[in-house]
Amino acid sequence: MREAARETVCEEAGVTVRGGDGVTAGGKDRGTASVIRRGANLPRVGDFNESVVLDAIRRHPTGLSRVELARATGLSSQTVSNITRRLLDQGVARESGKQPMGNGKPRTLLEIVPASRYALGVHLDPAVITCVLVDLLGTVVAQRSRATPRGGDTDKIAADMAASVSGLVAESGADRDRILGLGIAAPGPIDATAGWVVDPPELHGWGRYPLRDRLSEATGFTAVLDKDVTAAVVAERWTGAATDSRNLLFFYFGTGTGMGMVVDDAVLRGVSGNAGEVGGLGAGCSTRTLVEEAVALGVLGTEYAVTNPADAQRGVERLAAMTAEGDARADGILERLAIRIGRGVCTAATLLDIDTIVFGGPTWHLLADRLLPTIEPMVAGSPFVKATHPTAVVSTTLGANVAAVGAASLVLDSTLSAQPRTLLLT
Amino acid sequence: MREAARETVCEEAGVTVRGGDGVTAGGKDRGTASVIRRGANLPRVGDFNESVVLDAIRRHPTGLSRVELARATGLSSQTVSNITRRLLDQGVARESGKQPMGNGKPRTLLEIVPASRYALGVHLDPAVITCVLVDLLGTVVAQRSRATPRGGDTDKIAADMAASVSGLVAESGADRDRILGLGIAAPGPIDATAGWVVDPPELHGWGRYPLRDRLSEATGFTAVLDKDVTAAVVAERWTGAATDSRNLLFFYFGTGTGMGMVVDDAVLRGVSGNAGEVGGLGAGCSTRTLVEEAVALGVLGTEYAVTNPADAQRGVERLAAMTAEGDARADGILERLAIRIGRGVCTAATLLDIDTIVFGGPTWHLLADRLLPTIEPMVAGSPFVKATHPTAVVSTTLGANVAAVGAASLVLDSTLSAQPRTLLLT
Repeated sequence: MREAARETVCEEAGVTVRGGDGVTAGGKDRGTASVIRRGANLPRVGDFNESVVLDAIRRHPTGLSRVELARATGLSSQTVSNITRRLLDQGVARESGKQPMGNGKPRTLLEIVPASRYALGVHLDPAVITCVLVDLLGTVVAQRSRATPRGGDTDKIAADMAASVSGLVAESGADRDRILGLGIAAPGPIDATAGWVVDPPELHGWGRYPLRDRLSEATGFTAVLDKDVTAAVVAERWTGAATDSRNLLFFYFGTGTGMGMVVDDAVLRGVSGNAGEVGGLGAGCSTRTLVEEAVALGVLGTEYAVTNPADAQRGVERLAAMTAEGDARADGILERLAIRIGRGVCTAATLLDIDTIVFGGPTWHLLADRLLPTIEPMVAGSPFVKATHPTAVVSTTLGANVAAVGAASLVLDSTLSAQPRTLLLT
Repeated sequence: MREAARETVCEEAGVTVRGGDGVTAGGKDRGTASVIRRGANLPRVGDFNESVVLDAIRRHPTGLSRVELARATGLSSQTVSNITRRLLDQGVARESGKQPMGNGKPRTLLEIVPASRYALGVHLDPAVITCVLVDLLGTVVAQRSRATPRGGDTDKIAADMAASVSGLVAESGADRDRILGLGIAAPGPIDATAGWVVDPPELHGWGRYPLRDRLSEATGFTAVLDKDVTAAVVAERWTGAATDSRNLLFFYFGTGTGMGMVVDDAVLRGVSGNAGEVGGLGAGCSTRTLVEEAVALGVLGTEYAVTNPADAQRGVERLAAMTAEGDARADGILERLAIRIGRGVCTAATLLDIDTIVFGGPTWHLLADRLLPTIEPMVAGSPFVKATHPTAVVSTTLGANVAAVGAASLVLDSTLSAQPRTLLLT
């Protein structure tokens, strides 16, 4: 039903969309198999190639000619010509100028029309709820934030979130028919298949809640739900600091910590969509425990005691300020945190053999200047990060909203990216 | 060149084979892109669907009718009919009997012909070199082992390995034209693209050695090279304890320890093919350090001092025997090892959200009875292994040769599995 809804929305938006992620099928009637792959078919190849061409154009901000498109994608010039005509007709791409060819005929360049399609993203963080509308390139064109209401009436909170989303659409002036769908980023654990949040530690009283379907029903948009850390790494690949990496980690620092992971060009989600828990790595930390440690040590006064996630944010800001002012004890707390995070990312980087580590999340910008100078040499000097290739360490370029942009990127990625598994029959 | 060679060999063997794993392409001439996906084309769809049908038949040991094949794969009955005719012509499948259909016409069942195709595997372990020949189902039909020569002349050792492989083929009586290729499992680090081993810690004097190409040239078979831990997890998926899991870890215990990982139905390899290092998890251990610890503590006599990896094996056997006899100090050493391994697999299982942990490797069977009873409750009780789904803990069913079987499985998997990425143009 979820797939059917998604296809409907996207047909309205005029962009061809492949089916969902299903790569397994039944077949349990006889024998022992449960992991049978599905076949592929011809219409899906056409759709896939359209995505491939769109993807190539998107990745070349200076424009790309049809000849260059054929070379980059391996498709025939006839296929490229047919596909670009469709993309021009749909308004997704446009001719942007001419490429001089010496004595030859200049070639027409193609580029994306960013405002031709949009995606909505909403990030349910324990401290703040952020809604964004992004264009086809992932650029934020409208945004709303509000404090996350505490406890209690989840239906009411979900209704408020839906109202924020609808309000954002109205105030942005974006044509509703051009909006591909709504992405939701939530703290884990989640039930990815059902689209539920499942008792997130810092969201008291939420229990098992069908957030995806409630927001979809209330807004009228097809919705997808993923963990905040997974959304963040999808954003970094779509429009952030790691569009060129096929193997990367996103270390997420917010009310809690976690990792989004891409290995061999695929986002890792796992059995239930809950990949990315870093407690076992020693890098698990909540802003609550960080501030509680500071209060317990007398580094912060009891006025910083944490009763809700928004309090913790205030305490972290104070710790960062004290460190910048030269307070050695505050600095010691953050140094220990940096070392735990550094060990955690080194361990994961080695286990997964990745080449890029991106740091970000709602609270990261408060501590980046203090933590990165400790973490960077740990990564560079780690005996476990092999000398076979360098490992880049960077902060996100997407700011504190990375998970909200990521939520919207889930929609862009699932509807517009060229993913081989979408070639399979559903 | 590697791809060209692979295709040639497989055409000889009469099985249609898709191109390699290339999912990225150039396009760097203009703009910033380096991760452009390639398009798909129609002939590849046909090849892919043939693999899908073969895979479905293989996974149903009791046979599968054409109607069931169509249902399981999503393909039309006409497509299934055409493909099964080709598989019968190639001798890869056969009609195995009739399925009664009540009052209706009984349906003909199809099954794999195991001896129709073979694959070779060689595992370069620091202590022992093992060669196997497996059939299409991954069953070992011939095998040779010898102690790994120490130090020195790598060209000579590689030549000996090639001679073992050729000797194995000769003594097996298998038709050379039916052998799909040679898989090589080696300790990390490796350079997966170049097919090199890169200074493995316990293989002194190997330096950077082009093992894949040397063995390919000397045997005449197309060769692939992967890490031992990766080969092992591929074996478990092909024919071992986890053919039904899409998210699993293989904890490898040999001269060293490591992990093979499958997440979302894909084997994780990483930037350079070196995914699976567990040192940062605290689960890094070599049999050498284990025995050295025992000697240093006086639990083992100095006659067990390790000068080469084969010595270490002897020490581990003695430690296991002492523990079985009730020696508390030997037992303590193994208990601490079990706890380190237990923590490591819990951490990785949570980070990757997997549902199956398989233990194995050359030395595992010596310690399984002592280690598993400590590890199993750690996994079951881990606060990080989420209550969202159970996590199975099992020992390999493939014995101490799992990496050699895995090496052969690399060939079966790369030539016969239905992998969506093989639909892309190269």
